[in-house]
Amino acid sequence: MKVSQRVKEVPYSAIRKLTPYADAAKKSGKKIYHLNIGEPDTRTPKEFFEAVQDFNQDRVGYAPSKGLLELREATSKYYKDRAIAYDAEDEIIITAGASEALVFALIAVTDLGDNVLTCNPFYSNYYTIFRQIGIKPQTFDTKVEDGYKLPDYETILNSVNEDTKAVLLSNPSNPTGAVYTEEEIRRVARVAIEKDLFIIADEVYREFVYDNKEFMSFAEIEGIEDRLILLDSISKRFGACGARIGSIASKNKDLMTEIVKLATGRLAAPTLEQIGATKLYDVQDSYFKEINEEYQRRRDCVYEELQKIDGVKTYAPKGAFYVMPELPVEDAEDFAKWMLTDFDLDGETVMVAPGFGFYHDSNVGKSQIRLAFVLNCEDLKKAINLLKIGLDEYKKINS
Amino acid sequence: MKVSQRVKEVPYSAIRKLTPYADAAKKSGKKIYHLNIGEPDTRTPKEFFEAVQDFNQDRVGYAPSKGLLELREATSKYYKDRAIAYDAEDEIIITAGASEALVFALIAVTDLGDNVLTCNPFYSNYYTIFRQIGIKPQTFDTKVEDGYKLPDYETILNSVNEDTKAVLLSNPSNPTGAVYTEEEIRRVARVAIEKDLFIIADEVYREFVYDNKEFMSFAEIEGIEDRLILLDSISKRFGACGARIGSIASKNKDLMTEIVKLATGRLAAPTLEQIGATKLYDVQDSYFKEINEEYQRRRDCVYEELQKIDGVKTYAPKGAFYVMPELPVEDAEDFAKWMLTDFDLDGETVMVAPGFGFYHDSNVGKSQIRLAFVLNCEDLKKAINLLKIGLDEYKKINS
Ligand SMILES: Cc1ncc(COP(=O)(O)O)c(C=O)c1O
Ligand SMILES: Cc1ncc(COP(=O)(O)O)c(C=O)c1O
Repeated sequence: MKVSQRVKEVPYSAIRKLTPYADAAKKSGKKIYHLNIGEPDTRTPKEFFEAVQDFNQDRVGYAPSKGLLELREATSKYYKDRAIAYDAEDEIIITAGASEALVFALIAVTDLGDNVLTCNPFYSNYYTIFRQIGIKPQTFDTKVEDGYKLPDYETILNSVNEDTKAVLLSNPSNPTGAVYTEEEIRRVARVAIEKDLFIIADEVYREFVYDNKEFMSFAEIEGIEDRLILLDSISKRFGACGARIGSIASKNKDLMTEIVKLATGRLAAPTLEQIGATKLYDVQDSYFKEINEEYQRRRDCVYEELQKIDGVKTYAPKGAFYVMPELPVEDAEDFAKWMLTDFDLDGETVMVAPGFGFYHDSNVGKSQIRLAFVLNCEDLKKAINLLKIGLDEYKKINS
Repeated sequence: MKVSQRVKEVPYSAIRKLTPYADAAKKSGKKIYHLNIGEPDTRTPKEFFEAVQDFNQDRVGYAPSKGLLELREATSKYYKDRAIAYDAEDEIIITAGASEALVFALIAVTDLGDNVLTCNPFYSNYYTIFRQIGIKPQTFDTKVEDGYKLPDYETILNSVNEDTKAVLLSNPSNPTGAVYTEEEIRRVARVAIEKDLFIIADEVYREFVYDNKEFMSFAEIEGIEDRLILLDSISKRFGACGARIGSIASKNKDLMTEIVKLATGRLAAPTLEQIGATKLYDVQDSYFKEINEEYQRRRDCVYEELQKIDGVKTYAPKGAFYVMPELPVEDAEDFAKWMLTDFDLDGETVMVAPGFGFYHDSNVGKSQIRLAFVLNCEDLKKAINLLKIGLDEYKKINS
């Protein structure tokens, strides 16, 4: 009677590993600036709460397995306003966050032992899910030096092997903040066509794109409709992470038929939160604009401050709310831990996510950290300054 | 680019297969009594809605991956009141329904190709989940003749093979309504000890036990603490299926450490619904008593009416709200379909779940149906009467 090998091989999230140290630091009275977790601090629009308050049935019954029709319609309309056509009736399924959408998509396109292509570094929970369902990641590298752009066609193509069933990308990217250009998207699409792969596009950060750039969705590329599986979520878009509402959209009818079976197997996504989510789509576009502007300011702050630190390799992330710089240290996890256990400036310190856990089969991440700019500019400046001073001290001790 | 073999092998739920016929019948103006779905019609206690209304943060943030501490504490207290000790801090994890608890438990104790022992017939979604995560069911039979009691020790023992990692039972049982006696529970525990298996006890119907019988939980048996994984849910207990709140409890620290990793991988269960669920545990025990009495009345009605039908093999279910009788037909699925397409009495008919989908490697279920007695007595009587008249007609046509 032993726990399974597969569950043992699910990694502890690098962030979790540091949590005990953060807890101890807090207990000892330190104030911690959290740049380690990708949860926006923006308020959930009041439309959500109003809709939940208005619920007047006397029973919280199971919602349809595919999701409430109203929410599927609202999601469909949101896409339509962005020139993407997915039919509410049979091309959209509501899930418990993009997290569940991911599980459904992966189970529907892979058998045991298959692999899925993604880029290094990637959203670390991809690996957690792969492990659970008996598949492997297959990776190509992207690099801090050029802001984690995608590599050329051949490099991507040659990363595919005969067990590869899909390519999975987060765009805008967690953990790097990269936003792929139309040309990069088309490059991936070409590989997918050439190698006959599904494309799983995780676009949960699609509203977070800076410098007045237009976001190009995989769903805007013609000729890949049948192979595209679009994952989405209200978590980041509406500051509603705890609602656990996401979606999966595809024009591949066979695939959607199969995914309905998976949705039926877990009965339904939460009812009240679906009702709230439906009304979120009533917010004006000005809502997205405001948030976008605020996050661009934060991006600017972080980038500006990071540039002031000697020996740090960084870049201006183009989307999401992450940046993944390289520090002049050998072991960024050790440094991150040290910042919690041994460092403070006037009783304050900062918590970051070590980069290692976002990589597969690579040591590149060992000197990197991921920062989530989910605080206001003033706090971000203080936090990055703490990082700067901490780094100086840490380097002195370790040289 | 093809959908996976594993997803293709996930069966369509037998209920879903009939849905198009039910929809067509409704469109043509027929009234359908639904005995096919196990969703109680009881109201969700007002405590749930009040707690949700009182939520006054301006953001629906991620809850902790393990679940809100308050809800874990409330769950722990609920158990404690029933002489079961699980610590809120590290022996209980909140999940998105028992459905998710099941996935976590199974992934944590099985590797690809392993199997899990359960009884025929079983909750059909067990199979749906097995398929997705690369494991198989291993079954022993229980029989309508004796109300689906468990077979003797040797039979259970001999069903175990070298790839069996756990025994999984729903008690009270969906789909049969069997409630296992202390002796039966101990029998399973002995097999688990003898063969070194985990025990996954799905006790979501624990409040639905009739005839003033005490419910005996696996958690009350000494000597199996380390191998027991207890699954639970507020869905049926509080008429709150749509909240998607369940839990997993175990005293096996290694196991719980692993399951926390799985919980972290999907981030969190829904926040608002956890807040509501916490307050549900404030309801008085009289709440359970009332509901229990109502369901016992329904059980009595169904049993009484079923006995009036010629050739039907039935029994008095002791718990849950299901009964699984055998009909004097060869193909109960065909009959169930016919009831929707070809039969009505004064514009009314009844929808039932064919028994076949609740079995693995067995044809016994072909003549069986599962009835969920989730309507009031008057409607139940009408529904079973429709079944009786329908059966007569169907037999005439098919003989
Ligand atoms: C790239 C990416 N995909 C998916 C998710 C899952 O989000 P959720 O399950 O809250 O929708 C996250 C959350 O951080 C993410 O960063
Ligand atoms: C035996 C059994 N286990 C688990 C579940 C899952 O319930 P939920 O996910 O709503 O908690 C059900 C639902 O019908 C069930 O009958």
